[in-house]
Amino acid sequence: MSLKYYHAEPLANSLKSMVPLKEKGLAYESVYVDLHKFEQHQAWFVRVNPEGQVPVLDHDGIIITHTTVINEYLEDAFPDAQPADAPLRPRDPVGAARMRYWNKFVDEHVMNFVSMHGWHRMVGVIARSIDSGEFEKLMENIPLPDQRKKWMTARSGFSESDLANATDKIVYALAKIEDQLGQTRWLAGDTYTLADINFYSHCGMMVERMFPELEIAAKYPRLVDWRDRVTARPAVAEALKSEDRTTPGLRTWSGDR
Amino acid sequence: MSLKYYHAEPLANSLKSMVPLKEKGLAYESVYVDLHKFEQHQAWFVRVNPEGQVPVLDHDGIIITHTTVINEYLEDAFPDAQPADAPLRPRDPVGAARMRYWNKFVDEHVMNFVSMHGWHRMVGVIARSIDSGEFEKLMENIPLPDQRKKWMTARSGFSESDLANATDKIVYALAKIEDQLGQTRWLAGDTYTLADINFYSHCGMMVERMFPELEIAAKYPRLVDWRDRVTARPAVAEALKSEDRTTPGLRTWSGDR
Repeated sequence: MSLKYYHAEPLANSLKSMVPLKEKGLAYESVYVDLHKFEQHQAWFVRVNPEGQVPVLDHDGIIITHTTVINEYLEDAFPDAQPADAPLRPRDPVGAARMRYWNKFVDEHVMNFVSMHGWHRMVGVIARSIDSGEFEKLMENIPLPDQRKKWMTARSGFSESDLANATDKIVYALAKIEDQLGQTRWLAGDTYTLADINFYSHCGMMVERMFPELEIAAKYPRLVDWRDRVTARPAVAEALKSEDRTTPGLRTWSGDR
Repeated sequence: MSLKYYHAEPLANSLKSMVPLKEKGLAYESVYVDLHKFEQHQAWFVRVNPEGQVPVLDHDGIIITHTTVINEYLEDAFPDAQPADAPLRPRDPVGAARMRYWNKFVDEHVMNFVSMHGWHRMVGVIARSIDSGEFEKLMENIPLPDQRKKWMTARSGFSESDLANATDKIVYALAKIEDQLGQTRWLAGDTYTLADINFYSHCGMMVERMFPELEIAAKYPRLVDWRDRVTARPAVAEALKSEDRTTPGLRTWSGDR
């Protein structure tokens, strides 16, 4: 059995499927894909994932993409490899449904909105540092039209109204999560699940650093406590130590490690 | 054991979880929620689903919402109730991952874009028929801020550029699906799954009727053949016969039945 994980910096999607690999104690070969060099759009990588996106799981030559799908796949393929406290996907149907409710919420109402601010601050700087002819050539290599649009928008800058709308979505999510954590210890119930890993990777881990004006510590104390409990997990701490080539000045999104 | 299904017209989300109930031969109590009377935002329904949205599954008093989550729940809770040809969620991890890849694609890149055109043509007409003071009062009852925004936009009319962008997304999806159906008989492989039910309910069943200018029959013959195979399934045919109170003149979206 061989597992290979193609990933970039340990945040957002790249972190989201690395944590379950480590929580489950699965040995895997790590392949760092350098987004700063646009490796994800290069021919060798597009042969691995025709959509030109990280991360990718290769399990004995079978390619699985999209982190929510990868994480459910790891549960289906390795049901018995689990952390000591509880399985990452609850075994009872209602618990699994609660987990998927939150996964869907993060995938559709959180991820893209934090990502827009991250792209605005980090990818925008990278995109603007590329010469004009060179930039157009790089764009031609991007397989997904939506992704091409996002790069071009990052270069010209996201609009103030789109950024404000994204912030509204994040504030809504923070209140919803704070409320949930008043009812249950973890997002989907009494145990730590893939839903916690999802929200942590896309928002929880970096929201205080990215948005000091939201006064996270004062307004969302349960979220801060939850975040610290996730960060303290050995599997998470280990994943956070993996390769990070982000220029230090651009690390408001990827962290100040 | 008791199952109750709260739903509106048999299309989009309301159809999407009704089909699995019928495919699996599960007996359930059907509760029609009249969107034309805004019942989904009324106090009795918001007590059932605080988000004020249909459909909802009630299983022995446990409330499950969001169709992709409901459909996976039905697989977890009733694994042995399955159509004669194959289970709706493949039993092998790779097959389940393929199904979830397509579910995610439909949920994130198809559903909202067909829905925008449907709202523009149907819900917009309904929203504009309501008196001004009355409309604002109805808006106050909508629990989800995003949903409130969508109603207000439907009343004033979606912008040409948003509608054009939605059409682009639909055309991209049609080409992707046509390509997939050249490789496999159903979306996720050799068997009919929840992914087929998802794309059918949100796009496949109505796309030709809604967008005659896209020349569906001429340009996407495999999709038309696939659609007819889905429509011919007894469970689907039965679901399509359920209550439809749409004003006949507004049925470009809900159908000309």
